[in-house]
Order: sequence, then structure tokens, then C-alpha cells
Amino acid sequence: MRTLRVAIAGFGGVGRATANLLLIRRGRYRELHGVDVRLVAVCGSRSGLADPEGLEADRLGTLEPGLSGPDFIAASGADILIEAGPSDFRTGGPGLAYIRSALSKRRDTIVISKGALVHSGAELRALAQATGSLLKLSGAAGAALPTIDLLDHSLTGCKVLGIEGILNATTNYLLDTMMTTGLDFAAALRQAQMAGFAEADPRNDTEGWDTACKLLIIANFGLGADLTMDDLTVEGIQSVTRKRIEAWRAESVVPKLVGELTATQGSVHASVGIKTYPLTDPMARVRGKDKAIRIVTDAMGETVAIGSGAEPLATAAAALKDLEHILQARGSHPERRLEISS
Amino acid sequence: MRTLRVAIAGFGGVGRATANLLLIRRGRYRELHGVDVRLVAVCGSRSGLADPEGLEADRLGTLEPGLSGPDFIAASGADILIEAGPSDFRTGGPGLAYIRSALSKRRDTIVISKGALVHSGAELRALAQATGSLLKLSGAAGAALPTIDLLDHSLTGCKVLGIEGILNATTNYLLDTMMTTGLDFAAALRQAQMAGFAEADPRNDTEGWDTACKLLIIANFGLGADLTMDDLTVEGIQSVTRKRIEAWRAESVVPKLVGELTATQGSVHASVGIKTYPLTDPMARVRGKDKAIRIVTDAMGETVAIGSGAEPLATAAAALKDLEHILQARGSHPERRLEISS
Repeated sequence: MRTLRVAIAGFGGVGRATANLLLIRRGRYRELHGVDVRLVAVCGSRSGLADPEGLEADRLGTLEPGLSGPDFIAASGADILIEAGPSDFRTGGPGLAYIRSALSKRRDTIVISKGALVHSGAELRALAQATGSLLKLSGAAGAALPTIDLLDHSLTGCKVLGIEGILNATTNYLLDTMMTTGLDFAAALRQAQMAGFAEADPRNDTEGWDTACKLLIIANFGLGADLTMDDLTVEGIQSVTRKRIEAWRAESVVPKLVGELTATQGSVHASVGIKTYPLTDPMARVRGKDKAIRIVTDAMGETVAIGSGAEPLATAAAALKDLEHILQARGSHPERRLEISS
Repeated sequence: MRTLRVAIAGFGGVGRATANLLLIRRGRYRELHGVDVRLVAVCGSRSGLADPEGLEADRLGTLEPGLSGPDFIAASGADILIEAGPSDFRTGGPGLAYIRSALSKRRDTIVISKGALVHSGAELRALAQATGSLLKLSGAAGAALPTIDLLDHSLTGCKVLGIEGILNATTNYLLDTMMTTGLDFAAALRQAQMAGFAEADPRNDTEGWDTACKLLIIANFGLGADLTMDDLTVEGIQSVTRKRIEAWRAESVVPKLVGELTATQGSVHASVGIKTYPLTDPMARVRGKDKAIRIVTDAMGETVAIGSGAEPLATAAAALKDLEHILQARGSHPERRLEISS
């Protein structure tokens, strides 16, 4: 049985959930794909662990200081990198160096954090193509909500005319709260922060940047566009007044923070802002922390998907879906591939 | 450039739409997959046309009597069969002989009609496996609504706990009409028949059999179950009284004819019947002729998909999605494959 060595860079909640789920699924990988999957390295920003024989769950509690960085991951002999670090689209975040390093060494790479994909997506796509590595990113493009999957697989052959997505759980939860309780933005935000549904500095979510990042990744990696943040109009929900909420309630419409893509004559236009839906629209029924996407194509009409997995498990499962797609794609040439990548 | 010869058996509305869409997309197949796709044969139950150089759209208006049947298709030299005949799950329908013939000659096969898959699914699966042929069936399992795609691709690695699907457009339209207009079943049916949304003999739809067929195909081909029609409890909407409609309206719930699968300890239980949803549930918002599926998994929670493509184009597009998935899957060994299949 061939062995496949996996490393995880970024070891917060999502990285840990991914490690645990991967270890649980080892039997599946053996039976279904004929591969002995080993977790050979994990690291956070300052500490890590490595073992070429594979790490077990009971060893992941305490990391060793100093074991971190792209060179540490490369030295672990990993065939595949899963990148799960903090996201920063203005700099690419710490993930960028890990992803660059892995792709340039011909390692198939699974990306969960959005920063590097938004900041340097074109470079990373070109690098993957040049080295023949697979770059997968379900975890960064809606996680358990299928987005690029639909474009790549379920709608194959169709021409995409437009996409709209409710892609950020925090803003969806906040708008829901404002609409149902009558709380204003500040009060709804405080409540969400106390409940753990919004961050201490919530601006990345509330000002629309997180939605914009996901939209841009879907456009560039799902539709082959070449957009940067500068190409997007981005509006958030921070200026929504109680008066506006009351007007929407009076009209019986539901406001959602939506990322929209319109494809016309080979070019893609993208924006993030509030859009209202009548109660009869399934998009109006996307609750609390759920996410949704509507894709309109020439031949299949409208396809709506709604996802509501619990985090961080759902994102871990999205990344490991990517892992199995890699196992499938590499399945036909296992020997050749392992020569290249080891 | 390699040539791929396609034949279509069953040449009603869906077969014709598939032929036309395939001809329109030939440029795409050449550019994206490097394959010259030719439509080398089409046939209905009593007439057909064949040309090894490829048929063009303007020749498809008039078929020649006598050119029909599995031997006619085999003689056309087709590498791939698309089966789009009438569906009969009690006998397997005319499609069964075409599919058997194609698979036993190692031809990859795309099935649109449900009959053969319901009647002889286990045999056809075994035959495809024995001959190494690909058997694809998006068109028979929800068409433009992604169902098996979600199970096979978007939810890879997750354990499916349950599925519920609004899989039949006619019953969804009838229940919608009864709920919104107050018409009883007989009156709603007459209206739908006049509008062309229900067949003269509507029992295959209204008694739940069409839903049951799709559910069984999803269970057997998507979840690896081994169910027959005898394993399903099937109830339709034909006995819904005005009184029951009034009670649902009073409760503010929406009735849907739903196919349900529950997976427990390796076995799959399936049934078709009416289920009601609160207005806040996206399933309650599946309108008129749309279809929907909800899949619950261990790691990704709930995934809902709603599809609303116009027929017959959407079903043609589903079958041609299968064609591209075959082109992708065969892409890595084009020469070997063409040796085998030509």
C-alpha cells in the first residue's frame, strides 16, 4: 500500500479539527483509495510537531516551540500540505509562504484560509500549473457550502450568467437578529459578540470584506476570472439603520449581505452589498449562520445551494473532501506521482 | 485530435434537445478536451439516422424508417451511448436493451430514462463494473438538480445520515395550486393538464412512482444501496382532500411530496409520501416546477440544493455534463481507451 504524508500548517480550531478528522478517516482512505495516509507534521506560528511515522491524536495536545515555517514543513517529507492559518487578504497572511513553498516543490496543496488566495491568487494558480501540482480550496470558498464544486462539477458545460451568494455567517446572523428583534446594529453586534458569533473586531465580516474574499476566490478559481480587490465594490451592513430595517419589514422583504457576480461577454463584474429578497425566495430563508449560493446558467437555469454545517468540523470536512479529490485525481498514476513528489 | 462517436437512442423531446446541445458544444469539446465529438447515430423506436462522419442539426428533422435497435446503434461505431427513451420501471422499457448492449460492448453509457435503472440497476452496475465501462445517470436522478453529484463529489468523505427530496415537478405544481387557489385535486389536475404540466394519465407522477424511481436511483447509485421497488412505501397526492389542504393552511405549513432515505447502520430505508414544512424552511419555498434535495451528513450538517431549469434543455444539459465527466475521466488514457472501445 502506498503511503501519503500530510502536513498541516496553521493549527488553530480549524487546523486541529482537520487533523482529528483526518486521523479518524484513515481506515476509509485505506479501504477506498488504497492509501496509507499519515499526518507527518503540524505547526502553528511558533511551535509544531513532526514524525515521519505519523502523529496520533494523543500527541497533538502539546506542540514543541521552534518547529514552524515552510522549511520545517518541507523537511517533514509531506506529500500534501493543508494550509489552515489565519487569513489576511491585505498581505497574504502567513499561509502565503507555506503555499508558495509547497507548490514550488510540486506538492499538492489544500488551502483553507482565504488571504493568500485573494492576495496572490494569480501567482499561485500559475505556480500550480507550472509545477503540475493540484491546488484545492473548498475550505476557502464557502467550506461545507458547495460553490466551486457546483461550477466545476455539477454545472459542467453550462455558461454561467450570474452568481449571488450569502457567504458570511456573522452578517447573516446580525441581519436576522436586527430583523426579528428590532435591535439596532450596535446592539445586535454586542449580543452576537457575547454569544461568540462575532469577533471583537468584527469589521472584516460586517464591512463585507470576508464576503468579498470568498466572492473573489469563486470568481478567479471557479470562473477563471482575474479580479483583484480593487475591482470590487464592497459595502457592508455597518450603516444599516433601524429605519431601514423597519422599511424592509413593512415591505415584507428580507435583507441579506450578498456577493454578486455578473458574467457578460467574457468579463466578470463583482460587488458586495445588501440585497433584499421576497419571503417566497429560498434565499430569504437562509437562517442564522447558514450560507447559500445561487448560480444562474444558460442551460440549467437557477441552481441554489444552502449549507449549514457546524464549525470548525464542516470546514475540516471541506478540506478533506479536497484531499479525497486529490487521491482520486492521482489514483490513475500513483507511482509516477509518488516519484515526483517524494 | 481524437474522435469520439456518440449515439442517441430515444429521440423524443429530450433526445432531440440533447442532440442539438451536443452539436452546439462541439467547439467546447475540441478546445477544452481536445476531442472531436461526432453524433454518428440517433434513433427512435422505429426510425433513425446514422453517418460515421457525423450528423448535422439540419439532418435531424426526418429519420429513416427501420433504422433502430441496439444492433443499429452498435453498427454505427459509437463509442458512447446516450439513452433517452421512454421510461418504464415495471419492464425496464426499451432503454434496457440499448444500455445492456452498449455496456457489454465496453461502451461508456449515459442514461436519461429511469426505467432500466430501476428495473435492472444491480445488473447494469455489475455489467459496467465487469466491462470497465462508465455508467452515468445525472439525467435520471434529478437532471439539472444536483443529487448524485452532491453525494459523489461535494460531500465526499461524509457519512450520509438522511436524504429528503422534492423530486417530481408535477406533484409539486399540483400541491402548490391546491394550497394557493383552494382547488381540489381533480380540479387542480385538470388545470395542470390543460396547461401542459400534467400528463393525460398522470398516475406515474401523482401516485408517487416517479419520485420513487428517482429516490431508488439515488439510493442505489449514489449511496450504494441495493433497493428494489418492493422495499419502498409509496404514497402519492391523489387522495389529498380539500379538508386536509385547509388544515395545512391553518397550521401555516406547506405540503410537499417527498422521497425520504434514512441510512442507519449500513442499511437504507426509503419511502415516498407527503411531508409538511414550516414556512421558514427553504424546502417550503420550492416553487411550481422546481425540484430540491436535502442531504444530512455527519460532518457537513445539512446541504440543500434547489434546481429550476427549463425542460427539456436542463435534462439535456445534465446528460452532457455526464459526457464531459466521461471525457475528463478518460482523458488520462485516451489511446488505451480508444483501442478498447473502437
